[in-house]
Amino acid sequence: MTHDHSVGIVETQTFTFAQETPFVLESGATLGPITLAYQTYGQLNADRSNAVLILHALSGGAHAAGYRSVEDTKPGWWDTAIGPGKAFDTNRFFVICSNIIGSCYGSTGPASVNPATGKPYGLTFPVVTIGDMVRGQERLIDHLGIERLLCVVGGSMGGMQALEWAAHHPERIRAAIPLATTARSNAMQIALSEVGRQAIYADPAWGGGDYYASDRRPDAGLAVARMIAHITYLSEEAMHRKFGRRLQDREQFGYQFRTEFEVESYLRHQGLSFTQRFDANSYLFITKAMDYFDLSQSPAGSNGPVNSLAAAFARSQHVKFLVVSFTSDWLYPSHQSKEIVSALTAAGADVSYLDIESSAGHDAFLVEVDTMTRLLGSFMDRLAREEGI
Amino acid sequence: MTHDHSVGIVETQTFTFAQETPFVLESGATLGPITLAYQTYGQLNADRSNAVLILHALSGGAHAAGYRSVEDTKPGWWDTAIGPGKAFDTNRFFVICSNIIGSCYGSTGPASVNPATGKPYGLTFPVVTIGDMVRGQERLIDHLGIERLLCVVGGSMGGMQALEWAAHHPERIRAAIPLATTARSNAMQIALSEVGRQAIYADPAWGGGDYYASDRRPDAGLAVARMIAHITYLSEEAMHRKFGRRLQDREQFGYQFRTEFEVESYLRHQGLSFTQRFDANSYLFITKAMDYFDLSQSPAGSNGPVNSLAAAFARSQHVKFLVVSFTSDWLYPSHQSKEIVSALTAAGADVSYLDIESSAGHDAFLVEVDTMTRLLGSFMDRLAREEGI
Repeated sequence: MTHDHSVGIVETQTFTFAQETPFVLESGATLGPITLAYQTYGQLNADRSNAVLILHALSGGAHAAGYRSVEDTKPGWWDTAIGPGKAFDTNRFFVICSNIIGSCYGSTGPASVNPATGKPYGLTFPVVTIGDMVRGQERLIDHLGIERLLCVVGGSMGGMQALEWAAHHPERIRAAIPLATTARSNAMQIALSEVGRQAIYADPAWGGGDYYASDRRPDAGLAVARMIAHITYLSEEAMHRKFGRRLQDREQFGYQFRTEFEVESYLRHQGLSFTQRFDANSYLFITKAMDYFDLSQSPAGSNGPVNSLAAAFARSQHVKFLVVSFTSDWLYPSHQSKEIVSALTAAGADVSYLDIESSAGHDAFLVEVDTMTRLLGSFMDRLAREEGI
Repeated sequence: MTHDHSVGIVETQTFTFAQETPFVLESGATLGPITLAYQTYGQLNADRSNAVLILHALSGGAHAAGYRSVEDTKPGWWDTAIGPGKAFDTNRFFVICSNIIGSCYGSTGPASVNPATGKPYGLTFPVVTIGDMVRGQERLIDHLGIERLLCVVGGSMGGMQALEWAAHHPERIRAAIPLATTARSNAMQIALSEVGRQAIYADPAWGGGDYYASDRRPDAGLAVARMIAHITYLSEEAMHRKFGRRLQDREQFGYQFRTEFEVESYLRHQGLSFTQRFDANSYLFITKAMDYFDLSQSPAGSNGPVNSLAAAFARSQHVKFLVVSFTSDWLYPSHQSKEIVSALTAAGADVSYLDIESSAGHDAFLVEVDTMTRLLGSFMDRLAREEGI
C-alpha cells in the first residue's frame, strides 16, 4: 500500500438473503440462501442520497479499490477511479462495489456448497441472468437502507448491469453510466463466449463441472478460455504497440513449439494466472448470463415481449445517462453504444454520449485513466451539484 | 457432380523430391524425401507460358476445383474461380494447385512416416516456413518443366506464399495476386495462432504430438482451435446477419449448458467436422509457419537482415501485382495490404490495389464470388493478352 488518494485498507463484507423464501430466478428456478460479497468506500450521507454502485465485469469482484492489507501492493481493480479526489470521490460519495450471484469471489456460485446436498453445486447451480444479478444487488441496496442510488456504473458486463438497472429498476437510480457495453449480446459475442466454454468442456478435468472434490481442476481449459478472451480485450494496434513481433528471451527463431514471441509469453501468463484466481464453472455461468442478455426482449416479470430497445427504456426518462464507447473496441463496438443512445433518446431520457478515440481496445475503459477521470469526474460532479450533495 | 463450367473429375497427383539429397530448411534442419500432392486443370501450352499456380490457405489442400468422382457433390475449395470460362479459365490457362510441406492432405507432414524410424514424425517433424513451402513448390514447377509461371495467386496463407514467390523467386513468375493477407504476421495474428495451439496442447490426447498409434486423437483441442479460427474468418456484421440471436430448434432459453443459439450450433459443427478432416499436428506446424512469416526480415539464404519491406521486393520490379483486401477483414486488415502496396510501389513494381467493400470478413476472398470473378478475370485476361496467350 503505497499510493496517495487511496481509500486505504478495505474489507470485504457479505450480505445473505433468501434464507427462508428462496429467490426466484428468471428461469423459474429458485436459489437460496444467497450471499453477496461487497465492499464500501466513503460514508453514506444523512439523507442516503450519495450512494454509487460500481458494477464489475466478467472476471471482477467486490474489491474495486484500496488494499487488503498494509503489505498489499496491488489495489482493487478500479482504484484509478475510486478514492479521495478521484472520479468517484469517496470524500463525497458512498461507493459500493457488489459482487454477483454466480461468482467465485465470496458470493454464492457453482463452487458454493448446496445446503440441500452438502456438496458444491457445480453444474446443478441454476443458470442466472444479468437481471437476476441486478435483483440480487437490489436486495443488498435495500439492506443498506438506500432507497435510490445516485449512480450505477460499470464497463463491459458491468455496463449490462447498469442498463438492466435503468430499464427494470429506474425508480431506484438517479443516473447510469454504461461503459464499453451492449444492450444485447450479438452473434460474435455469443460465439466468443461459447468457444471459451468449449475449451473448458474439452478439459477432461472439468468432469461435467463436478471437480471440486478432485485433486485436478480444469486449469488447461480455463487458461485457453482466458487467452481467447484476453485477445478480445485488446485492439490489433494495442497488441502491435505492446508486443510487435519481438521475441521473448531470444535473438532468433528457435524453430520449436515453445514460447518464442513476447505476445505468446504474455498470453500464457494471462491464462495461467487466471486459473489461480478463478473458478471454471463460474466462468461458464457468467458468460452464459452475458449471452442471454438482450434488453430488447421480454424483461423479467413482464407479460409479453418488448420487441424494441426503446420500449425497454420506457420507464427510464428520469434517469440521466452517460454512455461511453471506444473507437478501437471490437468486442463491444461503438455501434452497439450508439444503438443504446438512440433507444434512450427515443425513450426521452437525458443522454450524454462519447465515442472516445482510443487504440486500447475494449480495455480502454480501465486503461484510459486520464480521459476517464475527467469524463466520469465531471459527470459525477454535475450530478452531485444537481442533487445538492 | 452437377455443375456447368466445371473442370470435371479430377485426380490428385504426387511429386516426390529430396530422395537422395535432403532438402535444407530455413531452420537449417533437413527433410527428405518430400512428397507434394497437387492437381492440375487445363493444358500447358506449347511454350509453357500459361501456367497459374493456386496457393491454398491454412486448412486447404490441392483439390481446388472439380469433383473427385461422378457421385461427388462438393467441388474443390475454389471451384468458383477455376474452370472453363471462369476467372482462371482452364480453356486458356494451365492451372496447378499445390499442397504444402507440413500438410496432412497427401504431402509430407508430421503424420507421415519418418523413413529413419519407421514411425510417424509427430513433433519430430522439422518446423517449416512459408519460404520452405514455396521452395518445395518451386521443385514441383521444375518437375513440370515450367520456367516461369504466368501467375501465382492465393488468399490468407496462400497470399503469404504469393508474396514469398514475388520477393524471393521473382524470375520465376510474371504476376502475383496476394489476397486478404499480410507481408508479416502481427502480434494479434500470432496471439490467435498461439491460442489455437494451446487448445491442442491442452488436450491430453495430443500427448506431445505422439498420438498416431493411439486410439484417441486430440479432437477436442483441435475443434476448439478451429472454432476460434472460424470466428476470425467472419466479420461481426456477417455473423449478425447469418445468425443474429436466433435460437437453435427451440422457442425460448433452456437455461442449460447445451447448444441454444444457432451460432453455437454452427461453431460446434465447424469444430467437429474439422477434426474429421485435419491433423492436429499439421495445424501446429502450419500456424507456426504463418507466425514466422515476415518478409521485412532476413530472407532465406541472405547474408543479413533486410529491415524493410521495400527492400524485400527489390528484385520484384518486373512482377505485375494485384493486391486485394476487404474492408471487414479484421484478421488481415486492409492496412496490412496497404503496407504491401506501399512497399511494392517503393520498389518500382506495377501494382493494382483494391480494398473491396464487403461485410463478409476474411472469408470474403472466397465468398464474394461475383466481385472476385470480375476482378481476377479481367486481371488474368489483360495478363494473357500482354503475354500473347
